[in-house]
Amino acid sequence: MKKSRIGRREFVQGLAGSVAAVSAVPRTGYGTPIPRQTPPKIKFSVIGINHGHINGQVQAVQRGGGELVAVYAKEQDLLDAFVKRFPTVKVAKSEDEILNDKSTQLVVSAAIPEERAPIGIRVMRAGKDYMSDKPGITTLEQLAEVRKVQAATRRIYSIMYSERFENRATVRAGELVKAGAIGRVIQTVGLGPHKTNISTRPAWFFERERYGGILCDIASHQADQFLYFTGSTSAEVVASQVGNVNHPKYPGLEDFGDMMVRGNGGTGYIRVDWFTPAALPVFGDGRLTVIGTEGFLEIRKNIDISGRQGGSHLFIVDQKEMRYVDCQNVALPYGDQLVADVLNRTETAMTQAHCFLATELVLKAQKQAQKIKLSS
Amino acid sequence: MKKSRIGRREFVQGLAGSVAAVSAVPRTGYGTPIPRQTPPKIKFSVIGINHGHINGQVQAVQRGGGELVAVYAKEQDLLDAFVKRFPTVKVAKSEDEILNDKSTQLVVSAAIPEERAPIGIRVMRAGKDYMSDKPGITTLEQLAEVRKVQAATRRIYSIMYSERFENRATVRAGELVKAGAIGRVIQTVGLGPHKTNISTRPAWFFERERYGGILCDIASHQADQFLYFTGSTSAEVVASQVGNVNHPKYPGLEDFGDMMVRGNGGTGYIRVDWFTPAALPVFGDGRLTVIGTEGFLEIRKNIDISGRQGGSHLFIVDQKEMRYVDCQNVALPYGDQLVADVLNRTETAMTQAHCFLATELVLKAQKQAQKIKLSS
Repeated sequence: MKKSRIGRREFVQGLAGSVAAVSAVPRTGYGTPIPRQTPPKIKFSVIGINHGHINGQVQAVQRGGGELVAVYAKEQDLLDAFVKRFPTVKVAKSEDEILNDKSTQLVVSAAIPEERAPIGIRVMRAGKDYMSDKPGITTLEQLAEVRKVQAATRRIYSIMYSERFENRATVRAGELVKAGAIGRVIQTVGLGPHKTNISTRPAWFFERERYGGILCDIASHQADQFLYFTGSTSAEVVASQVGNVNHPKYPGLEDFGDMMVRGNGGTGYIRVDWFTPAALPVFGDGRLTVIGTEGFLEIRKNIDISGRQGGSHLFIVDQKEMRYVDCQNVALPYGDQLVADVLNRTETAMTQAHCFLATELVLKAQKQAQKIKLSS
Repeated sequence: MKKSRIGRREFVQGLAGSVAAVSAVPRTGYGTPIPRQTPPKIKFSVIGINHGHINGQVQAVQRGGGELVAVYAKEQDLLDAFVKRFPTVKVAKSEDEILNDKSTQLVVSAAIPEERAPIGIRVMRAGKDYMSDKPGITTLEQLAEVRKVQAATRRIYSIMYSERFENRATVRAGELVKAGAIGRVIQTVGLGPHKTNISTRPAWFFERERYGGILCDIASHQADQFLYFTGSTSAEVVASQVGNVNHPKYPGLEDFGDMMVRGNGGTGYIRVDWFTPAALPVFGDGRLTVIGTEGFLEIRKNIDISGRQGGSHLFIVDQKEMRYVDCQNVALPYGDQLVADVLNRTETAMTQAHCFLATELVLKAQKQAQKIKLSS
């Protein structure tokens, strides 16, 4: 990874160079699977593949040294696509077939959101660790049950907050902030706009109880980043709002949500929405701004609308300089760490308390959200 | 003004070109006075010059056709600097000398914030119009009295929300949004970070009652933009916070504040702070993001940390294209409009209701703000 420490003139010249080498294809932030040189460290299987995030989840565990064994899903069309992508995977006839397989240590899921916690509870009770797509839990009642079973079984219940774990600039920003690059963190602002892509969405996308609401669904990424960057171990929701302000045909869709949060390490604001227009070449112009006592940083996660190629852009301004940090070669540690945690019974990828607190925050925000109605 | 309607490849190539022509000196957004070709349209004077904003205020009225007549201030050092900058101005011996001058139609003030409303009330009672630096009013009690006197006298009480009126990208964005460029507006996010420049600040900068609190002081800009871009004519504070989280030597300073607002035309979030680090070459990396049903826009008001020269940068993404809008030649209409309003008894620069509502929002947010205390 290159990090440039340069003055404004050189900073700008460097930009001109990087722009000259532009490519039309943005990077997604997800790496491709790396061929393994060594025997697999763990075996893992998949239950539920209703969201395309499953591909990134599987690839992360593979990168960490996991061997994909089996998959179970109810939907034949989704299974066909999954097997095409991962041709060595065995198709299980039932969930129990995977739960009863003693050799499988970890189960990964991107089932319909409301089913993820029940699956995870069954997985933990079967003595296995679990990694869910976000949202990993859709109600406070589910969260209470998950916490209880996790405490009793001491299994791992991990939720892949991919906007941090799978975004190189966010990983690098985390390292820099922990090293004191911007002093003590005061606040994070996380913006998570998304494209609806309505024509390709499954029915559950429009059913509030099934995806849990927009704050539960999307904002868990931003809640994770708020806690992580402020170093907060406790936090509360100051205020929250949700609404369907422009999709009257889909009454179960919440198209806007935002929340103010305050933790013991700093404050935060989170906004998520389904208003990204068609001309944006990526799913959304996700941003994270972190201000500290000695500087600030901005991450343009998926695209730089200023014109830089690709995603994972990190800008830092401190007391000495304004610089762009090239993150294209930053390693994504989540897969390695999760596999190590499975083997060593550690919490290096993310503490269990952090994982649950990020979700608790959005579930509380969702529950107490004021309803927005705009005049049209 | 040039506006480029181009695809991504050309967009990026255009950026490379603009970066090659970089200059090290950012534009401030304030124009220099234009020599008048015609007789002055109105005469105006100044009472109170405690903030440097007075220069931009005077220049705006001059651009609109105002002739600066007299200035009154208690501080000889500030007067000396003002007279040096505006050598034809007459120094009045008292405030009354200006208030009693029948030829002066408009009084402009950048007095210490808490004194601005009392001055404005005396100005209106003397039959003159008034234009204040922001914050133009520091308490809800002052606001009530100002509203009463304004209604009784039918004089203009204008507050120069310069982050809109004097920022070319914000002016242009306003025109585009009103023309429907991003559909119906859903939300604004306004970030107003600032440098403290502590060593050069006067005593009142650190006295909470005198500047009114951080939301009153800085966030009135963002409240103005929230109301303007959402087209809201009524609005409420959803939640607000203020704190002194890193300046224990200055207990009267609030160094962080934020607020969620909701109006009849959209929602908004506002954050202001005094944490801009030394390496930023301008006073703060002010941003405005506006999302609408058909697109979004971002304004980088004072600087583009991506490397583009100058300030007033406007980016728009809609259903058809992603584009950078060059705003360098956009005219700043506030001065012209205010002078016309003085002459014609109109409200073209800003309605009186809007001016007061923006201030009411921040005064309410300030009053009900939760106090932030972070562990250090």
